[in-house]
Amino acid sequence: MTDAVPTLTLQAGHDRRISGGHPWAYSNELRLDAAAKALPPGTLVRLARADGKSLGIASFNRNTLIAARLLLRDGAAQPAAIDGAFMEARIRAALRLREYFFAGPYYRLVHAEGDGLPGFIIDRFAETLVVQANTAGAEALTPLLLDTLDRVLAPQALVLRNDSAYRELEGLPRAITLARGSLPARVEVVEHGVTHGVEPLDGQKTGWFFDLHGARGLVAGLAPGGRVLDLCCNGGAFGLAALKAGAESAVLVDRAQQALGAAEASAAANGLADRARFIRADLFEEAERQRDAGNRYEVVVADPPSFAKSRKDVPQALRAYRKLARDAAVLVAPGGFLFIASCSHNIEHDAFVTEVARGIANAGRESRIIADGGAGPDHPVHPQLPETGYLKWLVLALD
Amino acid sequence: MTDAVPTLTLQAGHDRRISGGHPWAYSNELRLDAAAKALPPGTLVRLARADGKSLGIASFNRNTLIAARLLLRDGAAQPAAIDGAFMEARIRAALRLREYFFAGPYYRLVHAEGDGLPGFIIDRFAETLVVQANTAGAEALTPLLLDTLDRVLAPQALVLRNDSAYRELEGLPRAITLARGSLPARVEVVEHGVTHGVEPLDGQKTGWFFDLHGARGLVAGLAPGGRVLDLCCNGGAFGLAALKAGAESAVLVDRAQQALGAAEASAAANGLADRARFIRADLFEEAERQRDAGNRYEVVVADPPSFAKSRKDVPQALRAYRKLARDAAVLVAPGGFLFIASCSHNIEHDAFVTEVARGIANAGRESRIIADGGAGPDHPVHPQLPETGYLKWLVLALD
Repeated sequence: MTDAVPTLTLQAGHDRRISGGHPWAYSNELRLDAAAKALPPGTLVRLARADGKSLGIASFNRNTLIAARLLLRDGAAQPAAIDGAFMEARIRAALRLREYFFAGPYYRLVHAEGDGLPGFIIDRFAETLVVQANTAGAEALTPLLLDTLDRVLAPQALVLRNDSAYRELEGLPRAITLARGSLPARVEVVEHGVTHGVEPLDGQKTGWFFDLHGARGLVAGLAPGGRVLDLCCNGGAFGLAALKAGAESAVLVDRAQQALGAAEASAAANGLADRARFIRADLFEEAERQRDAGNRYEVVVADPPSFAKSRKDVPQALRAYRKLARDAAVLVAPGGFLFIASCSHNIEHDAFVTEVARGIANAGRESRIIADGGAGPDHPVHPQLPETGYLKWLVLALD
Repeated sequence: MTDAVPTLTLQAGHDRRISGGHPWAYSNELRLDAAAKALPPGTLVRLARADGKSLGIASFNRNTLIAARLLLRDGAAQPAAIDGAFMEARIRAALRLREYFFAGPYYRLVHAEGDGLPGFIIDRFAETLVVQANTAGAEALTPLLLDTLDRVLAPQALVLRNDSAYRELEGLPRAITLARGSLPARVEVVEHGVTHGVEPLDGQKTGWFFDLHGARGLVAGLAPGGRVLDLCCNGGAFGLAALKAGAESAVLVDRAQQALGAAEASAAANGLADRARFIRADLFEEAERQRDAGNRYEVVVADPPSFAKSRKDVPQALRAYRKLARDAAVLVAPGGFLFIASCSHNIEHDAFVTEVARGIANAGRESRIIADGGAGPDHPVHPQLPETGYLKWLVLALD
């Protein structure tokens, strides 16, 4: 597949970062002659320095700022071409890594550059694999990926969940399709002893957020005997894990009826409904009502959707995180815990910590950070792309 | 104890940070009149705004840059004075927090501001408590602390390990003493199933580094069946935990004979000596010898002493971390793991990650970060003193 790929050449002096281990070339670093401009988005190319020395094989999309993404670096101890052996080695390495950390087959199996497969995200729900191809390069390699997944894992169903906004930037259509096999009657994820249903073909739902798996286990460990408030519960992963771990009660809040319905169904299916209460509401409005009612909780979870979808939202988002920390801290019982997260990659870690600290101080509470984390080991990060570490969360103990 | 403490007043406009939750006042922010200057180091004072409004009770040392450290904020849901009840509440809160996370009585029990006790560090080895008082304020409160520890935990021995360099800055003498009780015949720490001896009165030894407890568990989980190289093994905590978890073999390196002797003794006492080898050497020199011998390991641990004891060391330290990452990465077998840590508070997280990434790339290896951590939950961090989060470590999976 890479015997005779076209060569794409970097402008003089623009190879240093890539030679130093970075996996991307930006469009303004490339010699975009007529031949290069004619290459269809997603074409495999040999990326070369200005002096002609090859750096490796990349996928190329001249229409995006990140124009070339390195798949295979020359001289690496890896297969020599982008073929079935290459893809199988990547999948097996990703699988092996997860098997160190996860007892069951529920995790993010492939995390793009973090697993050497730019543009690809694969979430595993036992026999169902949900694949996202977010770049033109990934789109072009999708048949090879699906063949390899079939060979290595023989899943019952392969779903292409190609509905992300990234695809538009790459000039790709958006669609969710069952690409291979047939879906089980019920697709499930088992986490911290709780079984949840997942609907991979349902465009309304966000699926499962594996990135907070470890955080949910940690929070559940703080919950035994306590009252738990989960302010943006989505499918109920935090609140129900806390109940399973022995929380006395949990109040689960979400403004989306579908999320709340899923959480309620999971509570019932797991025998946790008698200790759970579900409230459909906006998180800030509900926090205010809870405050006015004088309710207090040993564990408060605040895991909101992103407050900063773009850079221009950052100042407003920082204020929102401060307010969220304040409003949530007010609801924490003396000696209780606050979990608060930001999934906005535009919000930097230190700024997030600063705003959370201010918010808690504004609530008149003293606190300490007892855990400061991000996504788990099934979301590996390319060491030269730290910006892909989008998720930040804190657990604070309040006085 | 705080009925009639003197009042110390902030200069106008300098109360905002402290009112917002920060626990320190710097000497240039205070009105240092003759009366204030006459207060002995460590005196309890009422810290007040320029308009006279009280902020709370602080300990004061006019000779240090951090001149006042808030112990008790006005309006907090806490005891109203610095007395036995105050101290007991702090100790019990600290204890309760550890009991969520640790099955056995081995952890840092008090982590200074992170536990609301500025200047105090307490490490717990079951019935032996090792206390550091690092500020004049902590020195003055030491009798109250020791009384409270006796009442709450009734330990067999209370050791004052007052030999830190901080004490000199505070104008305090340095000494290690058995303050109360009698030491058990053998003081031990049990971690990840391995029992290590600890010598709390021995000035040559650094004691036990509880801050890497969680990291050692994670690394041990990657070790089963593999060969492990621990390049700065100190007491052997990483290498022996890996062996206990099922590593095939471990090579433990340290340049200090005493550390190596302790590690060797622990290996023997835990029945792990047959799979362990001990080498007395400098880490860089040994890494070079291992490379030249063609040795490769599934897990390489590089947890060196601080490379940057002061700000001026930073550029040199960054180069040293890069070199360490490169030299260690060369020794990692294909598909193996690298653990690398920095305990230098002068080295920032992002700079550390950058240098480690460069070093690994310089070794010609591709990698991904699978864990990015710091000290564990027994080292809580005051949310407005993020600089106390001195420890950074990464686990990387190498291709």
